[in-house]
Amino acid sequence: MNLLYCLRRASQFHGACTASHGAEGPITWDALTDRVRRAATFLRALGIQKGDRLGVWMLNSHEYLELYYATAMAGIVIVPLNTRWHIDDVARTLADCGAVALVIDDHFLPAAARLPQVPRLIIAGRRTGPPGMVAYAYADTAASFEEPLEDDVVGLFYTSGTTGGPKGVMLTHRNVWSNSLHTFAAERVDQPIWLHAAPMFHLADQAAVSLVPNAGGSHVFLPSFEPEAFMSAVQEYHVTDTALVPTMLSLLLNHPAFSAFDLSSLTSVRYGASPMPLPVLRDAMAKMPSARFQQHYGMTETSPTISVLAFEDHAGPAVGSVGRPALGVEVRIVDDRDIDVPVGGTGEIVVRGANVMKGYWNRPEITATVLRDGWMHTGDIGQFDSRGFLYIRDREKDMIKPGGENVYSPEVESVLLTHPAVLEAVVIGIPDPRWGEAIRGVVVRRPGIAVDERELIDWCRARLTHYKCPTSIVFVETLPKGGTGKVQKNVLREQCGHS
Amino acid sequence: MNLLYCLRRASQFHGACTASHGAEGPITWDALTDRVRRAATFLRALGIQKGDRLGVWMLNSHEYLELYYATAMAGIVIVPLNTRWHIDDVARTLADCGAVALVIDDHFLPAAARLPQVPRLIIAGRRTGPPGMVAYAYADTAASFEEPLEDDVVGLFYTSGTTGGPKGVMLTHRNVWSNSLHTFAAERVDQPIWLHAAPMFHLADQAAVSLVPNAGGSHVFLPSFEPEAFMSAVQEYHVTDTALVPTMLSLLLNHPAFSAFDLSSLTSVRYGASPMPLPVLRDAMAKMPSARFQQHYGMTETSPTISVLAFEDHAGPAVGSVGRPALGVEVRIVDDRDIDVPVGGTGEIVVRGANVMKGYWNRPEITATVLRDGWMHTGDIGQFDSRGFLYIRDREKDMIKPGGENVYSPEVESVLLTHPAVLEAVVIGIPDPRWGEAIRGVVVRRPGIAVDERELIDWCRARLTHYKCPTSIVFVETLPKGGTGKVQKNVLREQCGHS
Repeated sequence: MNLLYCLRRASQFHGACTASHGAEGPITWDALTDRVRRAATFLRALGIQKGDRLGVWMLNSHEYLELYYATAMAGIVIVPLNTRWHIDDVARTLADCGAVALVIDDHFLPAAARLPQVPRLIIAGRRTGPPGMVAYAYADTAASFEEPLEDDVVGLFYTSGTTGGPKGVMLTHRNVWSNSLHTFAAERVDQPIWLHAAPMFHLADQAAVSLVPNAGGSHVFLPSFEPEAFMSAVQEYHVTDTALVPTMLSLLLNHPAFSAFDLSSLTSVRYGASPMPLPVLRDAMAKMPSARFQQHYGMTETSPTISVLAFEDHAGPAVGSVGRPALGVEVRIVDDRDIDVPVGGTGEIVVRGANVMKGYWNRPEITATVLRDGWMHTGDIGQFDSRGFLYIRDREKDMIKPGGENVYSPEVESVLLTHPAVLEAVVIGIPDPRWGEAIRGVVVRRPGIAVDERELIDWCRARLTHYKCPTSIVFVETLPKGGTGKVQKNVLREQCGHS
Repeated sequence: MNLLYCLRRASQFHGACTASHGAEGPITWDALTDRVRRAATFLRALGIQKGDRLGVWMLNSHEYLELYYATAMAGIVIVPLNTRWHIDDVARTLADCGAVALVIDDHFLPAAARLPQVPRLIIAGRRTGPPGMVAYAYADTAASFEEPLEDDVVGLFYTSGTTGGPKGVMLTHRNVWSNSLHTFAAERVDQPIWLHAAPMFHLADQAAVSLVPNAGGSHVFLPSFEPEAFMSAVQEYHVTDTALVPTMLSLLLNHPAFSAFDLSSLTSVRYGASPMPLPVLRDAMAKMPSARFQQHYGMTETSPTISVLAFEDHAGPAVGSVGRPALGVEVRIVDDRDIDVPVGGTGEIVVRGANVMKGYWNRPEITATVLRDGWMHTGDIGQFDSRGFLYIRDREKDMIKPGGENVYSPEVESVLLTHPAVLEAVVIGIPDPRWGEAIRGVVVRRPGIAVDERELIDWCRARLTHYKCPTSIVFVETLPKGGTGKVQKNVLREQCGHS
């Protein structure tokens, strides 16, 4: 099974139905399949070989969708890039995976022009590219391609992950296919009209690339999330399904025009990627009574779904959990020697299943550490109740998730610590109604040097991708430390009202 | 993923819930898991090694269920034997697979005593076996076993199959697991109380061995199908789910005590294994309004589900089809050179998916023929409509060709079955000096309604193209049926001198 099976299935059973609403209007599954074949042929004609990596730095669009299918068909490894990244992150990632080319859209054209070196730039979204760039196109006739193998890597999805810097998560055809099947078993989907509102580089939304054709539905796109455009698209296209991160939901509910739109077609809303504040969830359920909310807990390394909190369980006591492991995903809670803790005990969440990644690109040591004995070590601390509901207690590996992004605290701390006025610094996540979590810096000043909150935030902004920067700084005399001198972040979090 | 994952999942999330209602009363998933471990240890202590074949010739029972799980745990290949088989078939099958032992129950004790040679007999169902037989038992303490691999063979399921004599279908852990996931995607099941009414050696019922623990349900057993015992069990255990073959359903509906039982707990009834006459289905839907009927079309070689006709589609025009391919199963219709026929065309049904068998035991040539290019060639003739519903036109070798025309038996049979005096009917081809083959109807009359040959032939002539009409009708008291309730047309053909 592979991603192309999904496309063939849609074409076989829903060939004349609408597959996607791109900028040029609706297109059927038969026509999309034809385009994908010719786009795959075009990419190969550019000299991009089977197994080569192709970066994609684009906002959500129909062309992005085509690229997912076309690279899969041509055996090219897609590398979807975070749209919020600083240009240095993009350059580093392209170098890390040895990308032979980068596809951009109009939005990223100015930034891409400043990239130090890329073998080749392909521009999608306009008919002709600037000098030196190739315009994304379709070959006149389609070549034939060999069927990908299940264990072939379909894409590299970069994540800050559980340890170290950004790493490319190698997901295979079987990984993404299995995730699709596991989530289908959790909730059947029938001819959804899916709105790509969360970014398509992120697995939470990328899952729809297989889910929608499997269920004979159609794709609708928002270039990037904006509440009014979201509501307008739902109303215009009678959108039935989408995936949102908690921040987006919060922005939506608090938007002044919320009640001006008819969102009643939206019958299924998946959310995840960061903790959902309960007040936001309750507000959403009250204001959007037609929508079945479903929480998906997961991570890039698991393609992404680990557990699902079904809509039915939102009314009961399990609403504070991340649900039960999806059928096909095995979850254990273990101590630091990888021994199971008794039910009700707290420990690291480890995961096994056909959805677990092949490994990190060119990082055999970290892969071996994280995939010990065939179990993906998530770095999250969890607990099962006696009915099999999973509760997340902490993130072992020191991650903060503002708006669903993974921010690895040490990266931010190291920037703060380079400021001449900073003696000690840590960052923690604090509850935030808009972003789910916000980043707070806790800083001990160097005696005799003045610095204020604004200056430190600006210091970070000049050196980090925007979403990684603290939004608040508090100054303290000392940091609470344990016996080994390690800063007790849990103490700081409690002081900020976040456990 | 493997069969043991299902057992662990049930124990993890439903450990204290009832797993099974055996002769000794209810048992929880935790207790069952413990027993399975000790039964696996017992089997290995008898000297049965990993990879050895173990025959099971038993009526449905809790011990049968334990044997499925325990052999999987111990890495022993289970060989479930048809309960309707003649002793010669059993002997031939045990020799074919080189079984090291055979587990029987009280029912098969007399027959087993006449078996020419079996390395070892194990008797389940009574505390002590006769001299020379080992009683099925549990070791005092459980050994630990290595986790089976996905491609390990979990069982050999003998079938007459599409070509040649009986062959052992090698199904792997991944095969049966995938089937479970595919059917779950078709219809979610939650804590079913499953009645094993169809024989447990057959894949139609065996599928529940993984489905029930996956969904946290429980098992109830009928030793063999008998309408009154079935209805009594449904009422006593509040049975929610079962799988039936059409003949069983027909026997049930026509039973004089039908209305004396409360069957309203039965919310899901899967049927398959042979064509369901529409009048029987309509009668069932009318008389059992609480039940969602689901048709599964499949075969042993596909673990077994290929397509599913959802309950919702029973009300529409697709009711005469076998539904749509299950998610995860790819189906094509091809001509005799394996080239796809256009949509709407008729050809052989070929199937690909993780549910397709590893091959036939010790039959590499037939395996290579049937699994050409990775596609399982079913030998069934089918046709897709434009919405992806699959229609079975006939078993390839059953096709009748009067005067060189292709006649698909079900088309003729369905017309015969609409006659008020006809209870059961099949058509076969018989040798004919003028046309090569002529069509003969074999009919069981409904009690109390008179009809003769002339009337039935005229009935068909009024409704079918002339060459499709039977030229002769014979009336019989019963139709010969195999263990699954499927009419044995080959027996009828032999009686007519046509093989």
